[in-house]
Amino acid sequence: MERLWTAARALEQQATAWRRDFHTYPELGLCEYRTAWRIMDLLTAWGYEVSFGRAVMDPDLLYGLPAPEVMEQKRLRAMGEGVPQALTEQMKGGMTGIVATIQGTGDGKTVAFRFDMDCNEVTEATEGHRPAGEGFASLHAGEMHACGHDGHCAIGLTLAKILADHRDAFSGQVKLIFQPAEEGVRGAKSMVGAGILDDVDCFFAGHIGIGARENGTLAALTEGFLACTKADACFTGRASHAGLAPEEGKNALLAAAQAAVSLHGISRHGKGASRINVGVLQAGAGRNVIPDRGVVKFETRGETAEIDEYMQSEAHRILQACADLQGVTLDYEIKGSSLSHEPDRKTGAEIAALARESGQYERVFDCLPMNASEDCTYFLEEMRKQGKPCAFLMLGSALAAGHHNGRFDFDESVLWRSAGLLACLAATYTKR
Amino acid sequence: MERLWTAARALEQQATAWRRDFHTYPELGLCEYRTAWRIMDLLTAWGYEVSFGRAVMDPDLLYGLPAPEVMEQKRLRAMGEGVPQALTEQMKGGMTGIVATIQGTGDGKTVAFRFDMDCNEVTEATEGHRPAGEGFASLHAGEMHACGHDGHCAIGLTLAKILADHRDAFSGQVKLIFQPAEEGVRGAKSMVGAGILDDVDCFFAGHIGIGARENGTLAALTEGFLACTKADACFTGRASHAGLAPEEGKNALLAAAQAAVSLHGISRHGKGASRINVGVLQAGAGRNVIPDRGVVKFETRGETAEIDEYMQSEAHRILQACADLQGVTLDYEIKGSSLSHEPDRKTGAEIAALARESGQYERVFDCLPMNASEDCTYFLEEMRKQGKPCAFLMLGSALAAGHHNGRFDFDESVLWRSAGLLACLAATYTKR
Amino acid sequence: MERLWTAARALEQQATAWRRDFHTYPELGLCEYRTAWRIMDLLTAWGYEVSFGRAVMDPDLLYGLPAPEVMEQKRLRAMGEGVPQALTEQMKGGMTGIVATIQGTGDGKTVAFRFDMDCNEVTEATEGHRPAGEGFASLHAGEMHACGHDGHCAIGLTLAKILADHRDAFSGQVKLIFQPAEEGVRGAKSMVGAGILDDVDCFFAGHIGIGARENGTLAALTEGFLACTKADACFTGRASHAGLAPEEGKNALLAAAQAAVSLHGISRHGKGASRINVGVLQAGAGRNVIPDRGVVKFETRGETAEIDEYMQSEAHRILQACADLQGVTLDYEIKGSSLSHEPDRKTGAEIAALARESGQYERVFDCLPMNASEDCTYFLEEMRKQGKPCAFLMLGSALAAGHHNGRFDFDESVLWRSAGLLACLAATYTKR
Amino acid sequence: MERLWTAARALEQQATAWRRDFHTYPELGLCEYRTAWRIMDLLTAWGYEVSFGRAVMDPDLLYGLPAPEVMEQKRLRAMGEGVPQALTEQMKGGMTGIVATIQGTGDGKTVAFRFDMDCNEVTEATEGHRPAGEGFASLHAGEMHACGHDGHCAIGLTLAKILADHRDAFSGQVKLIFQPAEEGVRGAKSMVGAGILDDVDCFFAGHIGIGARENGTLAALTEGFLACTKADACFTGRASHAGLAPEEGKNALLAAAQAAVSLHGISRHGKGASRINVGVLQAGAGRNVIPDRGVVKFETRGETAEIDEYMQSEAHRILQACADLQGVTLDYEIKGSSLSHEPDRKTGAEIAALARESGQYERVFDCLPMNASEDCTYFLEEMRKQGKPCAFLMLGSALAAGHHNGRFDFDESVLWRSAGLLACLAATYTKR
Repeated sequence: MERLWTAARALEQQATAWRRDFHTYPELGLCEYRTAWRIMDLLTAWGYEVSFGRAVMDPDLLYGLPAPEVMEQKRLRAMGEGVPQALTEQMKGGMTGIVATIQGTGDGKTVAFRFDMDCNEVTEATEGHRPAGEGFASLHAGEMHACGHDGHCAIGLTLAKILADHRDAFSGQVKLIFQPAEEGVRGAKSMVGAGILDDVDCFFAGHIGIGARENGTLAALTEGFLACTKADACFTGRASHAGLAPEEGKNALLAAAQAAVSLHGISRHGKGASRINVGVLQAGAGRNVIPDRGVVKFETRGETAEIDEYMQSEAHRILQACADLQGVTLDYEIKGSSLSHEPDRKTGAEIAALARESGQYERVFDCLPMNASEDCTYFLEEMRKQGKPCAFLMLGSALAAGHHNGRFDFDESVLWRSAGLLACLAATYTKR
Repeated sequence: MERLWTAARALEQQATAWRRDFHTYPELGLCEYRTAWRIMDLLTAWGYEVSFGRAVMDPDLLYGLPAPEVMEQKRLRAMGEGVPQALTEQMKGGMTGIVATIQGTGDGKTVAFRFDMDCNEVTEATEGHRPAGEGFASLHAGEMHACGHDGHCAIGLTLAKILADHRDAFSGQVKLIFQPAEEGVRGAKSMVGAGILDDVDCFFAGHIGIGARENGTLAALTEGFLACTKADACFTGRASHAGLAPEEGKNALLAAAQAAVSLHGISRHGKGASRINVGVLQAGAGRNVIPDRGVVKFETRGETAEIDEYMQSEAHRILQACADLQGVTLDYEIKGSSLSHEPDRKTGAEIAALARESGQYERVFDCLPMNASEDCTYFLEEMRKQGKPCAFLMLGSALAAGHHNGRFDFDESVLWRSAGLLACLAATYTKR
Repeated sequence: MERLWTAARALEQQATAWRRDFHTYPELGLCEYRTAWRIMDLLTAWGYEVSFGRAVMDPDLLYGLPAPEVMEQKRLRAMGEGVPQALTEQMKGGMTGIVATIQGTGDGKTVAFRFDMDCNEVTEATEGHRPAGEGFASLHAGEMHACGHDGHCAIGLTLAKILADHRDAFSGQVKLIFQPAEEGVRGAKSMVGAGILDDVDCFFAGHIGIGARENGTLAALTEGFLACTKADACFTGRASHAGLAPEEGKNALLAAAQAAVSLHGISRHGKGASRINVGVLQAGAGRNVIPDRGVVKFETRGETAEIDEYMQSEAHRILQACADLQGVTLDYEIKGSSLSHEPDRKTGAEIAALARESGQYERVFDCLPMNASEDCTYFLEEMRKQGKPCAFLMLGSALAAGHHNGRFDFDESVLWRSAGLLACLAATYTKR
Repeated sequence: MERLWTAARALEQQATAWRRDFHTYPELGLCEYRTAWRIMDLLTAWGYEVSFGRAVMDPDLLYGLPAPEVMEQKRLRAMGEGVPQALTEQMKGGMTGIVATIQGTGDGKTVAFRFDMDCNEVTEATEGHRPAGEGFASLHAGEMHACGHDGHCAIGLTLAKILADHRDAFSGQVKLIFQPAEEGVRGAKSMVGAGILDDVDCFFAGHIGIGARENGTLAALTEGFLACTKADACFTGRASHAGLAPEEGKNALLAAAQAAVSLHGISRHGKGASRINVGVLQAGAGRNVIPDRGVVKFETRGETAEIDEYMQSEAHRILQACADLQGVTLDYEIKGSSLSHEPDRKTGAEIAALARESGQYERVFDCLPMNASEDCTYFLEEMRKQGKPCAFLMLGSALAAGHHNGRFDFDESVLWRSAGLLACLAATYTKR
């Protein structure tokens, strides 16, 4: 263990450099061409067996692809940034997920680690913001790593390097999973559905910050994942002149407006927390035309998947009724989905003990609440169903601002420390 | 003519007495047991051939019957007021309409006059109100002749007496129609649908007051009838405890509330005026129970029957969608209906000339606007379709207060004057 | 202790008789004239010092008095059932609460017990319903003890009799509180506000059934009380004719409808469960009149008093805005209120131990969830604030049907058993 | 007269060329830099005394300026198309209106003609669309003369040329008004408010097509102008995370949605037609964020200015209440306005007679209905108030498609014929 911690600390500068590279070139979910290329390049060089795209993702279980012209534009940009054209073509259709495996010394279990790669649709702050000051601000206007996934990728690479350099420190096999499109909870289901956990005995993932906002802190487990579904409703009506013949119109704007109001009126559930939010409503074109188009983008959440399913089923019924209310038609599409998850307390206790014994942490929590959604729950629930150990850690770091904020930044000491801990988990759990 | 006017004026006190009798015993629509009995008694005595009930009404075209227990209570009350039980039994189910005919001297046309008999659900004022002062206030609590139909019946009887006494003054035949349930526009369609206009060559009706609010005035025609439909929507959901399991309820109160809001949002019509009013909403029982019942009572109007039909069809769609919005069921029932009507200007001009020549009026208008609904339009439109003369007159009178107000009262000089004019019309148009 | 249990069991038939008497004459909240008279009569006879009305209630803290004519009708009915007129007059204005004290042998603490007296607005079932079969069905149409408060009063009397007969079994003082109007959470605040807990060292209350639905079971504590507020909103607008001048109206029905829809759209709270229910909406009078009156009766709940306060403050803002939306005025009135409560686990453990040791129970739970509202929380929170022991017990009984159902009934063995347990608590806690 | 008609017909090709030039370079309202420059250039050359901008417009009465960056972009584009920079700078702030005067021979009245210059935000069709086929399609993407204002300007120039060439044909003075921003009814009030009608004795304007859709037809008058107001409401709330703390948000999307629903529920007016349309609703940014911004763009109309004023006042109240409903703030801004107008039947009869006598028209209507809004009503109402003759003509032409449609086109024979008629009106009315 000591060896692994030493190796981790030695990689501190390298981890920071990797993180800053990813931070400079943030990529939206399902367009992580450059990010994936960089990761695959290094992992291959270090002796990992690397698969990606359709080999590790089921395209039918992927949600919320960006518009084709957006994906194409991002692909061309990535090519301009050095990604080989052939690779970008293989990644078309959001096929940017990666699975890389490495064998340890001797027989053992298979332990998987999952890292997410995508950035946010956020414009990065400049004045008084460290990335701008130290020269690693986003070069992609309107895109920013404001949720720490750049750090997650850097931790993944650092972990990969430690393991490659210390094959004798673990037995069995380690599987590194780099997932696209965690934002919008779009990518996990596709990877889990492709069966990449079938041979996995133990699974770990984590997130920088969230409830652990001091350097040197850790939560061994996370609870309070809200099951979540994202969906779009598009109403199509019939335009007419608002002065001459308003009665000939079929008003899609009013359908959308009444949908927004009615969705927020879905009854609370007696069995636990639920959420509903219509985040976006866009309708109509001209002031004197009965609007023939209205779009509503919303999400539901539930303390359990059952409650989220209740919310979705209510929402779908309401949307159809609001279409009927105006005599317009409805297109309804799920855009993302995550589950709830009851954490594996036994594994959590083991991780907490291991972390405390390492002496690398100032404070270790057994479990902290998420109160938000993460599609890592597809991985976690798959493990739970199979009765296998799993954990979602909170990797403590001071934050410059909250997640998804243009001033978000974290303390890079979280990188080597997290990689060290994960390496220890690999060593421990491959030997179980 | 002169003879008829003299006869009319001679009946002034009698007309007033009849009116005050009807005023004292007001009866709600489709419960006009005593009113109809009094009228039939007199007409029969004067030699009229009298039909009533199913002989002159189609029960399938009757709208908005009161609750069975209400009708029964009124029937028993009428029996207590002297109406023979056998007669009340024949009138069950709202069968209170009357048609009475009398032959003139020699061949001629058939001229019909229509009078409405029902009162309002209004509590009559007492202090400073003439009926109370002069001893003819309503004896039926909550019921009042606040729209002048007591006067209409008195005019009808006065006209009947003049004609019975002057059979040589007209040829052909005169048909007197006493219609139930004009309030709520419920009774006319049933009588027209029974075919009672089939042998009629010419049709007249009228209303005291409305736009003619001075004594000695007359409007020969009325325009601006709004087509109107009355309907009830009843939503039935599922109750549940609002604290323990609100999600198990199906909220009929919210369906009704959203219906009310949405109905008022029906688009205006480019081709003319429309109206919508939800007049009553009643929903829910206990504060901590998800409401399983909600009732909405509303009406639509249109400048034309087409526009009212548009309003109804929109309303029906909206109500079903609001039921779907909450997952509740809808019962929808039409409760009353009237049409629009373009007046017969030629006949109007003739009436106006006749009235002016009579010297009995201080001012005669060719036409005044109604801007409200009357189910006499079913009679008028039937005549118009058959290309036969018809008119709806406004019988001018000073009013103590507006129609449907507890202080409503009119000047009884309108009774003999109107009867005289109608007698002149009978004499004139039977000879055409 | 053994003595007390023996005494309790000996009173079994008497307890049942008292319960059935109360069941036969159920009285709505703040109208418990006969119930209070019966209780006071017996307590006085047994040597209790009895206070009632303004001596033990603050009229300014009383919520939701019935309409004056209702209260007067119930008062006259009670007089017809034997209650002295002078007493009923002292109880006017809902002043029906009672506090009775009795001294034990020697110095000690003051232990209080609270019982609620009011019935429900529920029509009692007859066919196949035991009270009807055994001759103690409600004689008051539309009123029924469907929540077990008849049982609570009988337990209170049985406890009182045991204590009066065994003054040597306890020291200090016992205070029996009979509270009006628990239904609608209206009466507790008024009694607590009158200071009746100021000299109390320890407090107990309980409820038959709820989560303990088998005979011989007990829960020593109750958790999951939802803070709750009941309120009425009355909108007053301006009537106008829906056909002639709809624009002159100020539509109170639409204000109420939009309020219902908007209230159900109050945002969920991130910190815990909340509830909203508009249980009743009544608006409008005539179909063709713009409605000038609309009433909304609703309740909010919260996992904590803070969350319920958030719901109320949102609701009040929304109601005012809905009034403004239609240009109508708002009258807003709180009709009832309860708090949340974190149970006193230490006292609970003591009670559970005592109950288990007694050998009188087949199963004793430490704590069961309420998931509903109870204004006993005003008593409980007052004790908690003062750092004094308190508990709200669930008194287990098989139930014929759920609470507030017309078929509700319980097994009367719960009466003596509960009285026995409370007597033991009195003996135990007065000696602390 | 004959001379004037001959002169008009001789300018047919020139008129078409001018129209096609304007069609090629369409400019949005208040950005008519190039259009105004071309017109002023020619008029000056022909001897007109030309004023523009602040001399003939009141900036405080101008509605709905485009965003500054849009206006600047259009200004730079106009410079690229040859407009002198100094001129464009004088026109900044929408100051693109023109008044040009010419003296006739001898004393006489002042007759004014008004033409509007702006285009629509419409993308012009290409395939099968004559302007594309004959090489005069719009060069400005997203901008198109789809309402015939290019034709109006060409008629104005043709009229100007005829008058300049035949000063002996009229006495007194002719005033040509070129108005910006008729679309959105934004420009007229500003010119009328600047007093440019103060010395005018007689006023004419007109529109190609509308109800006169055959070549060689004319309507001497137009009726049925709906008074209209355009306004924007912008709601500003507070964002918060929809999962963690939805209760901390102030939901501007729901305010906008409820505003849309409520605005469509404004009561119909008993005195005449009204209209309401929310044409555009845009709200929210991210799916998981409580939306802090919502915009509603709407218009009201009324058969009279009083009714439109009622609609506006209701709308403003409703918008504020919807802001309060969500605890957000409201910015409200009027974006355009027009009036209703009762046409000058006497002048209409004179024009109709003159047109019929000319033998240039196949069919002349006395008056046709508009059933839409035009801010020329500010000119017309000012004349009516001063008791002076005025008329708004419909200039008949076959149309390739309806107004505001990407396939709109008209028959250019309407240009010389209209100019000829207006020249005759100038000759006739300057001599009155």
